[in-house]
Amino acid sequence: MQKPAYDVKEIEKHLAQYIADLRAPAVLKDAMHYSLQAGGKRIRPLLLLSTVSALGKPAGRGMQTACAVEMLHTYSLIHDDLPAMDDDDLRRGKPTNHKVFGEAVAILAGDGLLTHSFGLIAEDPGLDDALKVKLIALLAKSAGPEGMVAGQVADMEGENKTLTLEELQYIHAHKTGKLLRFSVLAGAMIGGASTEQLEKFGQFADHLGLAFQIRDDILDIEGEQEKIGKRVGSDESRHKSTYPALLTLEGAKQELRRHTRLAKQCLAETGAETGALMELTGMIETRDH
Amino acid sequence: MQKPAYDVKEIEKHLAQYIADLRAPAVLKDAMHYSLQAGGKRIRPLLLLSTVSALGKPAGRGMQTACAVEMLHTYSLIHDDLPAMDDDDLRRGKPTNHKVFGEAVAILAGDGLLTHSFGLIAEDPGLDDALKVKLIALLAKSAGPEGMVAGQVADMEGENKTLTLEELQYIHAHKTGKLLRFSVLAGAMIGGASTEQLEKFGQFADHLGLAFQIRDDILDIEGEQEKIGKRVGSDESRHKSTYPALLTLEGAKQELRRHTRLAKQCLAETGAETGALMELTGMIETRDH
Repeated sequence: MQKPAYDVKEIEKHLAQYIADLRAPAVLKDAMHYSLQAGGKRIRPLLLLSTVSALGKPAGRGMQTACAVEMLHTYSLIHDDLPAMDDDDLRRGKPTNHKVFGEAVAILAGDGLLTHSFGLIAEDPGLDDALKVKLIALLAKSAGPEGMVAGQVADMEGENKTLTLEELQYIHAHKTGKLLRFSVLAGAMIGGASTEQLEKFGQFADHLGLAFQIRDDILDIEGEQEKIGKRVGSDESRHKSTYPALLTLEGAKQELRRHTRLAKQCLAETGAETGALMELTGMIETRDH
Repeated sequence: MQKPAYDVKEIEKHLAQYIADLRAPAVLKDAMHYSLQAGGKRIRPLLLLSTVSALGKPAGRGMQTACAVEMLHTYSLIHDDLPAMDDDDLRRGKPTNHKVFGEAVAILAGDGLLTHSFGLIAEDPGLDDALKVKLIALLAKSAGPEGMVAGQVADMEGENKTLTLEELQYIHAHKTGKLLRFSVLAGAMIGGASTEQLEKFGQFADHLGLAFQIRDDILDIEGEQEKIGKRVGSDESRHKSTYPALLTLEGAKQELRRHTRLAKQCLAETGAETGALMELTGMIETRDH
């Protein structure tokens, strides 16, 4: 993995601090902290902060909102791993939340992260009220029953079925695409992007989201288990529809290259200082976990 | 039950409409709708709307925020009933969400309701941005890891233990008290209450919350199973600490009367038109379900 465009350690320090600051039962804080600090690439907060920087705003503007997105993403992983959902024992090479804290605490840690993420945006010191309201409305749409949660439901309903490419795209656009798109758009809004720039950043995010998911599917076939931190080949054994299954492995790799190229083209067209975002895009194309 | 101070049907019509408006998978909308329409006293939206009215604002101002609180409350019931939590088959006399839709959809329906509730406040047409931000920050605190979720964790940890009165009060203040308090304070903020009035409404809400919980514990001993819609005596069989267990049944009834009286006294001291809230308070003291 290349050196990330923004300091991941800085993000993780803030994440840890927000949890430490909570007046809450110790086991709840431990469970929230455990999954937040279990690694991960921090792609969403990196996208958000790098987009803010690309528009010339001071480094760290929107940090609290960036961490809110990471908390929300982490809640979705905790709930997704539950026995009633994907029933995963490992996440990023470590025992999943419910394996360590039990199912009840895992459900509540997820609920707590989701709820707190909205509070963090409402109290982000770098944003005015009008912007906070817009971000919260967009996050609720991106993560809720019209966004990520819709994707989770569609994904479950699609298991053990052969999906069309259109159905597969609906699932990914919602399950992972919407929150990636939120991260970029939130950064653009915090950075004060023009209407035209917002449009271009949105298109960038859509191509990036597709590239991200196609890479995920390819890694499930070609990746090294140690680096991914979960079992390779799990999609196939669960009879999940994937891009390689629908397009062949070579076809999927072509699509990955195409969407990465288009993502970079959209970035260039924003006219912003997108060096860090170009790097992140390259990282997403070539990541090994 | 006395005639409620506000039209419950109106609230339920709005709740149904907000779900119908969602562009989401049918099974997800069905599951969210099912638990929202499974009855319930609508105490939280009634408190919010009646407080707005008490301060002379037009009826219906804050409706979207009132429905958001009911959605958030409903998510907490769905997750609380899950096999990993209280493992309840019945809620308000009907099969619980996971019994009808399965655990995975129930978890996601809860996640969806929780997320959407923040979106509804952010898009409540009757509120300005500064107020929306305050309400969202307060709701996240009241419902999240420092509020309701903390209460749920403490409640779980307290099972099969004898709690002190202080520990019992921590649980209730967080598990049910914070969201009731939010409902009243949100109504007061939307109604434009003065600092002194906010203080009094807050005290009212605290006494009301205690009265509410004590009545709940008494109903678990004396109530009629048919009216409550769940098994009577379940607290005792689960070795849950309750007010009657700590104070005797008679002592608990005295406390119920005392907190109801103090709640009404605080209401009177707000100087607002609190007729409907007085009625609601009386209803909470004498409710049979």
